[in-house]
Amino acid sequence: MTYLPVEKVFRVGIEHGAGYVGRELIGLLQQHPALMLATVGSRSMAGKMLSASHPALRGTTDLEFTASILPTSGDPDSNHPDSSRPDIDDLDIIVLCAAHGDGASQVATLLEHGFEGVIVDMSCDLRSGSVAAFEDRFSRPHPAANLLQEAVYGLPEIHTVEQGTRLIANPGCFATGIILALNPLNHIKLDGPVAVTAITGASGSGARHQATTHFPDRSGNMRAYNVFEHQHAREVNEHLDGDIAFSFVPVSGPWTRGIWGTALVNLSNSVSPEDVVAAFDHAYSGCPFVRLHKNSLPELHYSVGTPFCDIGIIQSGSQLVIGFALDNLLKGAASQAIQNINCAMGWDEKTGLIGSVASLAIATEEATL
Amino acid sequence: MTYLPVEKVFRVGIEHGAGYVGRELIGLLQQHPALMLATVGSRSMAGKMLSASHPALRGTTDLEFTASILPTSGDPDSNHPDSSRPDIDDLDIIVLCAAHGDGASQVATLLEHGFEGVIVDMSCDLRSGSVAAFEDRFSRPHPAANLLQEAVYGLPEIHTVEQGTRLIANPGCFATGIILALNPLNHIKLDGPVAVTAITGASGSGARHQATTHFPDRSGNMRAYNVFEHQHAREVNEHLDGDIAFSFVPVSGPWTRGIWGTALVNLSNSVSPEDVVAAFDHAYSGCPFVRLHKNSLPELHYSVGTPFCDIGIIQSGSQLVIGFALDNLLKGAASQAIQNINCAMGWDEKTGLIGSVASLAIATEEATL
Amino acid sequence: MTYLPVEKVFRVGIEHGAGYVGRELIGLLQQHPALMLATVGSRSMAGKMLSASHPALRGTTDLEFTASILPTSGDPDSNHPDSSRPDIDDLDIIVLCAAHGDGASQVATLLEHGFEGVIVDMSCDLRSGSVAAFEDRFSRPHPAANLLQEAVYGLPEIHTVEQGTRLIANPGCFATGIILALNPLNHIKLDGPVAVTAITGASGSGARHQATTHFPDRSGNMRAYNVFEHQHAREVNEHLDGDIAFSFVPVSGPWTRGIWGTALVNLSNSVSPEDVVAAFDHAYSGCPFVRLHKNSLPELHYSVGTPFCDIGIIQSGSQLVIGFALDNLLKGAASQAIQNINCAMGWDEKTGLIGSVASLAIATEEATL
Amino acid sequence: MTYLPVEKVFRVGIEHGAGYVGRELIGLLQQHPALMLATVGSRSMAGKMLSASHPALRGTTDLEFTASILPTSGDPDSNHPDSSRPDIDDLDIIVLCAAHGDGASQVATLLEHGFEGVIVDMSCDLRSGSVAAFEDRFSRPHPAANLLQEAVYGLPEIHTVEQGTRLIANPGCFATGIILALNPLNHIKLDGPVAVTAITGASGSGARHQATTHFPDRSGNMRAYNVFEHQHAREVNEHLDGDIAFSFVPVSGPWTRGIWGTALVNLSNSVSPEDVVAAFDHAYSGCPFVRLHKNSLPELHYSVGTPFCDIGIIQSGSQLVIGFALDNLLKGAASQAIQNINCAMGWDEKTGLIGSVASLAIATEEATL
Repeated sequence: MTYLPVEKVFRVGIEHGAGYVGRELIGLLQQHPALMLATVGSRSMAGKMLSASHPALRGTTDLEFTASILPTSGDPDSNHPDSSRPDIDDLDIIVLCAAHGDGASQVATLLEHGFEGVIVDMSCDLRSGSVAAFEDRFSRPHPAANLLQEAVYGLPEIHTVEQGTRLIANPGCFATGIILALNPLNHIKLDGPVAVTAITGASGSGARHQATTHFPDRSGNMRAYNVFEHQHAREVNEHLDGDIAFSFVPVSGPWTRGIWGTALVNLSNSVSPEDVVAAFDHAYSGCPFVRLHKNSLPELHYSVGTPFCDIGIIQSGSQLVIGFALDNLLKGAASQAIQNINCAMGWDEKTGLIGSVASLAIATEEATL
Repeated sequence: MTYLPVEKVFRVGIEHGAGYVGRELIGLLQQHPALMLATVGSRSMAGKMLSASHPALRGTTDLEFTASILPTSGDPDSNHPDSSRPDIDDLDIIVLCAAHGDGASQVATLLEHGFEGVIVDMSCDLRSGSVAAFEDRFSRPHPAANLLQEAVYGLPEIHTVEQGTRLIANPGCFATGIILALNPLNHIKLDGPVAVTAITGASGSGARHQATTHFPDRSGNMRAYNVFEHQHAREVNEHLDGDIAFSFVPVSGPWTRGIWGTALVNLSNSVSPEDVVAAFDHAYSGCPFVRLHKNSLPELHYSVGTPFCDIGIIQSGSQLVIGFALDNLLKGAASQAIQNINCAMGWDEKTGLIGSVASLAIATEEATL
Repeated sequence: MTYLPVEKVFRVGIEHGAGYVGRELIGLLQQHPALMLATVGSRSMAGKMLSASHPALRGTTDLEFTASILPTSGDPDSNHPDSSRPDIDDLDIIVLCAAHGDGASQVATLLEHGFEGVIVDMSCDLRSGSVAAFEDRFSRPHPAANLLQEAVYGLPEIHTVEQGTRLIANPGCFATGIILALNPLNHIKLDGPVAVTAITGASGSGARHQATTHFPDRSGNMRAYNVFEHQHAREVNEHLDGDIAFSFVPVSGPWTRGIWGTALVNLSNSVSPEDVVAAFDHAYSGCPFVRLHKNSLPELHYSVGTPFCDIGIIQSGSQLVIGFALDNLLKGAASQAIQNINCAMGWDEKTGLIGSVASLAIATEEATL
Repeated sequence: MTYLPVEKVFRVGIEHGAGYVGRELIGLLQQHPALMLATVGSRSMAGKMLSASHPALRGTTDLEFTASILPTSGDPDSNHPDSSRPDIDDLDIIVLCAAHGDGASQVATLLEHGFEGVIVDMSCDLRSGSVAAFEDRFSRPHPAANLLQEAVYGLPEIHTVEQGTRLIANPGCFATGIILALNPLNHIKLDGPVAVTAITGASGSGARHQATTHFPDRSGNMRAYNVFEHQHAREVNEHLDGDIAFSFVPVSGPWTRGIWGTALVNLSNSVSPEDVVAAFDHAYSGCPFVRLHKNSLPELHYSVGTPFCDIGIIQSGSQLVIGFALDNLLKGAASQAIQNINCAMGWDEKTGLIGSVASLAIATEEATL
């Protein structure tokens, strides 16, 4: 008999799990051999089945939402805890899907109450090393500036996420694509700024309807927004390995999932095609979640529903275009969180994301022969 | 030299013209040889260009929205009229695009102030001959019950809209399709109720975003609503020429414009295929806006962007399916209003809706030779 | 240490695996704890990576297509086998995704060459117990009429698929939805035929472009086809538990994945709402892949990407509507194949389709404490 | 009585009118006060109603397709003409919608047979002043090189189309958008090449299905093609007023109608925001078909279904983005043809394209008082 070895199954809690990222996290956890979903918080859905907000999950889980998985704030040593809240000591990992601006204070609450597991914050609050990004955006002081240096920006292809990391700031979706597209250019001489146009699907706006997701206005339409001013441009600048000047036009596109973009580059005359290919090969040779396309640009469809970021390059003389495509809810959010958790736990970063379940058993069988 | 004869150009006002039906009306008026858009009211857009809410119209009109084209209610004899409001005596025709429940009182206001032109009310308020439909829906007394007998239900294929008609209740979009599909069955013996499933696009929900038009939930989705309880079922029942039992499942579909439906009929054994074809031929032989398809069902695309309702029939033994397709904003709303105005003015009902502008000149040329 | 017990990993081959159903099978096999993809045949893609036709799979498998996984036909005892073909003795299970009309002869070839594993035929060839269905459709003799009685129609909710079953005819996608929607009616008294309108996405037409999948003609369109003549109507009639008269209008809808339909039923006056609910409850109480919705109809979105068929019922007096929704590529094809394989192997039919991987390990842990 | 004066109605023939551009031309001619559709050629549809290939037009015209409106080639003086062909002497204007590579020889045929009216060629054959563009693309000699200097490139915003012009090469759809976006830059100092990414809908691929328009592959997808090598880049280069270096990534987008693009520009430091605005204002102040958006980019929806090209500009320091949007079948093809015909006939270029029909009558009324 063959065995699929599982040393321990680790328990994961999700806060604010009624949205699109929550739904993707739940689905990914169902496929992970060493992680299990223990509890999901959502104020608006408290007491209802997960399937009440995620109907596609009906029949796969009987879990109900709790109002919040966080300890009652302000009174960590209370003798009268809210009995409906899960005990965070029973959780190994917590993923926070709060709104931007609310994540850092939730992290602080967890730490104040002694949570010792891994925390992944999906908000933008801890992505920058300085308070300026937060304070410029939200016009109020950063609620947990002391955590900025501790939080690791969880883009493993750029910065290694070490085993034992306890606080991870999960990157933005546009930022993930643009950083992965541009970072190899640090080793190439450019002439002038890079021109980035990137288009995102409507799931990027979240599960609540708004003017920009009204079907008659979204279907068959393209709409630029926050031109030259998108908050992810700042995030990209901070986390690129070097200085690369670029301008960024973010666009809303007529689909639900995925980001697709082009980065047009004017190369210095001294750069050869081989230099470009070498730079991208070098950057991503050991990266299972980046798929490199040489002399073609990726189609958006390739990446939707997958944990990959596809990067394609085409060069003609001094002109280079880099195309990139990723699923904003997966490599741009939920699967990147799992990838980061895998790294923090010291596992292969592909665990539960790439490869077949049965092959794990086969590998074990071979190892034990 | 040839002349396109125009006895007079008639002036049209639109109340609540910032929505989708208003936009279609404006576009149709631009193509009509004897009607011109004089003024458009919209509380939310007052003082702004029409193109502020209808960007596609920019460059085609310099008209601005006024807050309302209605006289100030409650004081018809005021010596101090609101100077920003247009004088209704300058208008020949007024189309009211108010929300359901608000149309009848606007009609009453116009009549109280002595408006003598043609009024088309797009709301449901005056579609029924009795107050029950209104009172059941809105749970309050009908504000102008005295008008119910005066208002003509403007579906010219079923009830003639006579020259001189002054008050027209424009039919609902689903009701238009279902009545046109089912009415010929009055002359055929059926066995059991007719089964109607009809699907509408997102423009049917109006220009404001809502949960049912959130792109990720609408795209690639089908969602039934108000099953067996849609208000248009009652409207259909009242305006069919006879009693036809039917059940109706209304559905939201993943497109912007158009209604497409099937009506499955179990015929009495004595009905021959010739009987069915004859009934539909007889019903629509003189109706330029109904296009009959024999032995095929219409595609939705055929009718979108046109003032037609397409009706198709396929029979197999005692089974008959009637397919119907129409543009909910045109034959289901705006072009039907123009068709009704044409009838009320005593013009050819096709005027400005079907046929080429140049051919009018040619017809005149031939007539005067 | 906890173990996920795997007695043996069974090897699966797919013939004609370059299409949409092949792609889904590959994805499902990657998630299955006891099945592994061993080989995939495709004449047109021979020698290329699986990702050449399934780009989303790039990075998850290094397998290449072989031309065919079938033994060379006509010479089962050849001493000079085609060395590029896999040895079918190395396979435990074979799924045939040939075109309709080609499946039965491929099954015959496998059996002639002594294949002793489980065969799932995705074509329509073996779905009927008589040769008429095949011969009427293809106008030629059935190539393997002797297999018709042996093949099991693989809709486990209706006919149990016993452990040890070796030949499974996988049902059609429309047929799956309609049978599951109508079969409970066998226990209810109806008055007149049931009216079925069902709409399918473009993936139902396969991976090759054709006139009916041209984007400008498919997007925002609805098109009925084969009205009253769809081959699945015959399949439904044969596999319903009793005689239920129905008419069927199949429709092409503007989306990629999923079937959504309504069945409108005129009940005998003696039928109570409780009777209807009881019939559906009874039919599907032990069926993990049917999700019953009482007093609502399912949205298409619920079922897309899942192995479930959603069934909803709403009754009003003698009128009943049954709504059904399923993913045509999953419950209508690939996941149903896996479900059937699970049954044939004697496993829980949910294995690899519902439930989390980690929970298997937990269950084991609890069992061994 | 008021008259709409029509000196003469001019007769238009369309060759190859069964495609999308043919359909749009027919629709526009129905709205034009001085042009009427006389005849439409299509080899594949000969003898069938126009509505056989354009179902939405059913009920608006009884015209049938003829096989070809061209004289039988090779025998201009034949005494036995093909009686089914229309006499080109009865036509005032001919629009050729032949495939690229076939237009020039059709023009030559018309001229050889003495056609004296206006010819608009929708193909690329006569867009370049030199034979190289044709010969590089089609790898054969240009069939009518003598016409290259005579043909006028019909982009009136850039090159005036004089009254009396008899041969017009109608521009490409991408080229129209890119030229209109970039041409004002001729008066501004740039630093480096302009980066253009432009996305087109599926109607740009024509009415016949192909792999790139297969619904499952087009819906929700983005796919770059002919990167740095699109034929329109050459067309843009030739017809810009000066030399502007740019790179061009053409993309297929998931909608039916419209082109939407961004052009990212690195300005020389000496260029002020006022310089940029002035350049665009100057370029398009007298151009009714270009709508300028300052400090915003146009949405694609604005332009679809209209004869306009929308151009928007946003500047931030030395970074400038120009957004452009147009309907590929209208300003990119059919309405541009009508605009060119209006110019060639000496009429207001807006005739039949912008403004209300009734207002023509009013203008006349006022003029004759």
